[in-house]
Amino acid sequence: MKIRNLVSLRFKERPADCVIDSHALMLRGGYMKYVGSGIFSEYPVLRRITAKIEAIIREEMNAIDGQEVLFPVVMPAELWQSSGRYESIGSELVRFQDRNKAKLVLGMTHEEAAVHLVKEYGQSYQHYPFMIYQIQRKFRDEARPRAGMIRVREFTMKDAYSFHTSQEDLEQYYQRCYDAYNRIFKRAGIPEVVTVASDSGMMGGSVSHEYMLLNEAGEDSIVLCPECDYRANLEAAENIVHNASSNKLSPLECVETPECKTIEAVCEFLKSDVLSSCKAVVYQKNSDDTFVVAFVRGDYEVNETKLRNLVGEEIHPAEITEDSPVVAGYIGPYNISDQVTFYCDLSLQGIDSLVAGANKEGFHYVGLNLERDLGNVTYVDIAKVKDGGICPCCGKPALTIKRGIEVGNIFQLGTKYTKSMNMQYVDKDGSMHYPIMGCYGIGVGRLAASICEAKHDDYGPVWPISIAPWEVHLCCIRSDDEETRCVAEELYDKLQSSGVEVIYDDRNEIRAGEMFADADLLGVPIRVVVSPRNIKEHVIEVSTRDKMVKDSVDIAEGLDYILDLKAKLYAEL
Amino acid sequence: MKIRNLVSLRFKERPADCVIDSHALMLRGGYMKYVGSGIFSEYPVLRRITAKIEAIIREEMNAIDGQEVLFPVVMPAELWQSSGRYESIGSELVRFQDRNKAKLVLGMTHEEAAVHLVKEYGQSYQHYPFMIYQIQRKFRDEARPRAGMIRVREFTMKDAYSFHTSQEDLEQYYQRCYDAYNRIFKRAGIPEVVTVASDSGMMGGSVSHEYMLLNEAGEDSIVLCPECDYRANLEAAENIVHNASSNKLSPLECVETPECKTIEAVCEFLKSDVLSSCKAVVYQKNSDDTFVVAFVRGDYEVNETKLRNLVGEEIHPAEITEDSPVVAGYIGPYNISDQVTFYCDLSLQGIDSLVAGANKEGFHYVGLNLERDLGNVTYVDIAKVKDGGICPCCGKPALTIKRGIEVGNIFQLGTKYTKSMNMQYVDKDGSMHYPIMGCYGIGVGRLAASICEAKHDDYGPVWPISIAPWEVHLCCIRSDDEETRCVAEELYDKLQSSGVEVIYDDRNEIRAGEMFADADLLGVPIRVVVSPRNIKEHVIEVSTRDKMVKDSVDIAEGLDYILDLKAKLYAEL
Repeated sequence: MKIRNLVSLRFKERPADCVIDSHALMLRGGYMKYVGSGIFSEYPVLRRITAKIEAIIREEMNAIDGQEVLFPVVMPAELWQSSGRYESIGSELVRFQDRNKAKLVLGMTHEEAAVHLVKEYGQSYQHYPFMIYQIQRKFRDEARPRAGMIRVREFTMKDAYSFHTSQEDLEQYYQRCYDAYNRIFKRAGIPEVVTVASDSGMMGGSVSHEYMLLNEAGEDSIVLCPECDYRANLEAAENIVHNASSNKLSPLECVETPECKTIEAVCEFLKSDVLSSCKAVVYQKNSDDTFVVAFVRGDYEVNETKLRNLVGEEIHPAEITEDSPVVAGYIGPYNISDQVTFYCDLSLQGIDSLVAGANKEGFHYVGLNLERDLGNVTYVDIAKVKDGGICPCCGKPALTIKRGIEVGNIFQLGTKYTKSMNMQYVDKDGSMHYPIMGCYGIGVGRLAASICEAKHDDYGPVWPISIAPWEVHLCCIRSDDEETRCVAEELYDKLQSSGVEVIYDDRNEIRAGEMFADADLLGVPIRVVVSPRNIKEHVIEVSTRDKMVKDSVDIAEGLDYILDLKAKLYAEL
Repeated sequence: MKIRNLVSLRFKERPADCVIDSHALMLRGGYMKYVGSGIFSEYPVLRRITAKIEAIIREEMNAIDGQEVLFPVVMPAELWQSSGRYESIGSELVRFQDRNKAKLVLGMTHEEAAVHLVKEYGQSYQHYPFMIYQIQRKFRDEARPRAGMIRVREFTMKDAYSFHTSQEDLEQYYQRCYDAYNRIFKRAGIPEVVTVASDSGMMGGSVSHEYMLLNEAGEDSIVLCPECDYRANLEAAENIVHNASSNKLSPLECVETPECKTIEAVCEFLKSDVLSSCKAVVYQKNSDDTFVVAFVRGDYEVNETKLRNLVGEEIHPAEITEDSPVVAGYIGPYNISDQVTFYCDLSLQGIDSLVAGANKEGFHYVGLNLERDLGNVTYVDIAKVKDGGICPCCGKPALTIKRGIEVGNIFQLGTKYTKSMNMQYVDKDGSMHYPIMGCYGIGVGRLAASICEAKHDDYGPVWPISIAPWEVHLCCIRSDDEETRCVAEELYDKLQSSGVEVIYDDRNEIRAGEMFADADLLGVPIRVVVSPRNIKEHVIEVSTRDKMVKDSVDIAEGLDYILDLKAKLYAEL
């Protein structure tokens, strides 16, 4: 198509409110338009990209025996009540009523709808395993939509659900899906995506993986070990701490520590090592506001996701008042109020003699030995891994933390949904069982934005050919020159009849510089320039958006050259 | 794929609550599952059909220079307030609030989103005309969802919006779209769809057409003239009435008509002709409950759509109490309360002497002559066309009324949205203007169900090959017989590698009758049966679902025969 007919404008200035490049470039290039908080419309340029991503996903899902279905965006509350999620999910789940006051929700994921759809089909063991998937809009009322298409409220997602009669069968299928995902990201031009072990969050289940594109713009922290293959989301990364024992115990003493409300202040005041201190972080349960205290070694932070999983329900940072059963700044595990649930992190294990709050304004204990003074202590892993921490896999102190964008995730769900929704199958021997589920998601728009984030320069995106809005960007400089225009138009026609997707710029009313700036913003991989100067030398200029190729090609050989280049670019994926 | 792996079950019994055949057959065939009132999930069989319909629509929209975009399902209320529709549309529009109490709506159509998206692009006359479209989910909170996929609340729709700088240009494009729609319905296997003039309803604008599939299951009434080309939706059909004058006036008299509350009772009592009577139908405005009375000739019914358009706002049937300014059963145009707005239908024009209510309990007027007794009477068209009525086009009393399913619509919107949302363009001469819009819709799921309704027999749908879930249904009877299975499987492989979409039934555990019943429910156009009996004669059986073809074909020639038949079925569309 001609760029003069392309619906959307491009502009030069970086919009002020864009914190990441993909957001700025996709606005500047006329890819999308803001409609409301976390809500965008897609212009034709982006729709072409998302359609190609959808096609790649569809092919790979069909290749692992997935069958495409369609679930509704709007669902009756009863469906979500049947799994318990109508109550357990917070305000991300949009709840509303219809004209008859019937309660409805907007789908943010479709486990319930999937179980509902296959409940009868799945009654016989003979039908297993099977996988269904959809590519559909979803709405999640995010508290903080941000970063353009990276974290939005409404999005297109491919969500797949597999059903199995044994854990082994799920694991086999999970591996097929794992591989299919790697193929999808490779075909979409970002083979560098890594998988990390992750926390399953509200989905339930145990084993899960996230596909992470390592990128500074990401909002996830990923723990990697360069010494081995260990990779995990910070939320799920295991923290290993070795405390060397001095084999000396000290007596437990309560000492005055006036105005020492932070670990740093206490250690400074008592001239003690922060590695022998016990830090308290206080939360309250959302359900009844009872207090939960997490104790970690003074140099660690609490990993709220791990703590939440341990508590088994939603928690929030505590608001401590005079009536609270804890004393802000002086909380410790010894003599703590029995109205408080507390957990001791593994980082406290093996410390002979701790400094800890005395649960009394202005006082701390010194010489605290948890085993001796508290009796039976169960240590749990509730601390955040630190850069340079010990790898739980190879044991080397080599962990590094990087930022990443989550572009996909896969979960082993187990029987959470089939049990709660009472979906059962009859086995060979007539016995009844709950099927075991897996689920597998990819956000289409986020993937597009992530690719842009990974593949761009100062002037625009550098789209991989497989998902680029067009394959060739043809610029005719001086279309008022008849010979030039004829060469360009002949090439345009030939390319199109050879099955190449071409965007053609024949605008004589703008300068070449503007034309190239527009081309940079559209990020099409192959650029062809036809100009009077080139024509004189019987050539056209062919280059790639990533600057790896820049050639003058004889006009007569132009078409073949471009077709070869196109094939080469696809082959590289 | 193998039918044994197809997710969904088929069954024999017609579900009790299905009023139309497509609904019953699509449930029995495992096409869809009820999730909630007017909300369905699509099983793989239906998703394959809707995907093919979407592909046809996409091709035809691209062929008329449409550019695909994507608007959000959820939109901020402000967007709908900017056009005034947030207030003017009733409870079909779902309104809700997000976690921050911001008001949102669910898109039931996207005129506002379209104007919002192209407001900047459309600032220069040089960019016109252009058309954008999307294929997206929508939600409309219908009061009475019914008939399976025909009238639902959530649905996939292709909606297109064109923008123009002159009415002539809109009309030209409207015609292109009109033709594209006819191609779509032809390619989808229902060339018999007719266009009818329609009422524009809440969309605004003047000229509009509906694409109607004539079918008894339809919920629309369509007025057709077999003598000429006149076709209109009953809601919009013009009613022509000729009253022959007797050239005799009678004096106006008020007579007692005890217990005569209906036109029939009055005419019976007064021994007068119903064609000389004036019937009153009473409504109230939704906004302030003031009374609106429609007067039509005794044998006519009121067309509420026309009346509503005339009143210019929503109305509902009146509740008449003792305090009302009208007397139930005795309402007439003479001496009617000035608190009442009333309209006289064209069917009353030219009647010399009418019987009409006297606005007084138990009394009617006789000898009423509207022009003489009321003075300046303006007659308006607010009556429903009747079977055998006069065609407004050719003048012959030949109108017939049929039922139809609306499968698409196109509107000339004018400047309703561009004006209200203040979208303007700068013309060549620097002057500012509001662009003129057209909009064009097709419901994907409804189209699938309509085709099923038009093309089915007692045993299942008879899908046109272009939208059928598969092209060939291959049945292997007695797959335990090795020779039979080999022939079937070889054919299955060959068909697939020849690009034919095959559903393969090799279930030996069921009888041939069940196999064929399943095949009937899937409605695949070409059926191939391989069985030991046929193998003995070195043939396979090939037939079409519509029974037009039934052949025994030599095994060696099977593949070519099927490929030819497939090509022939496509060519027939």
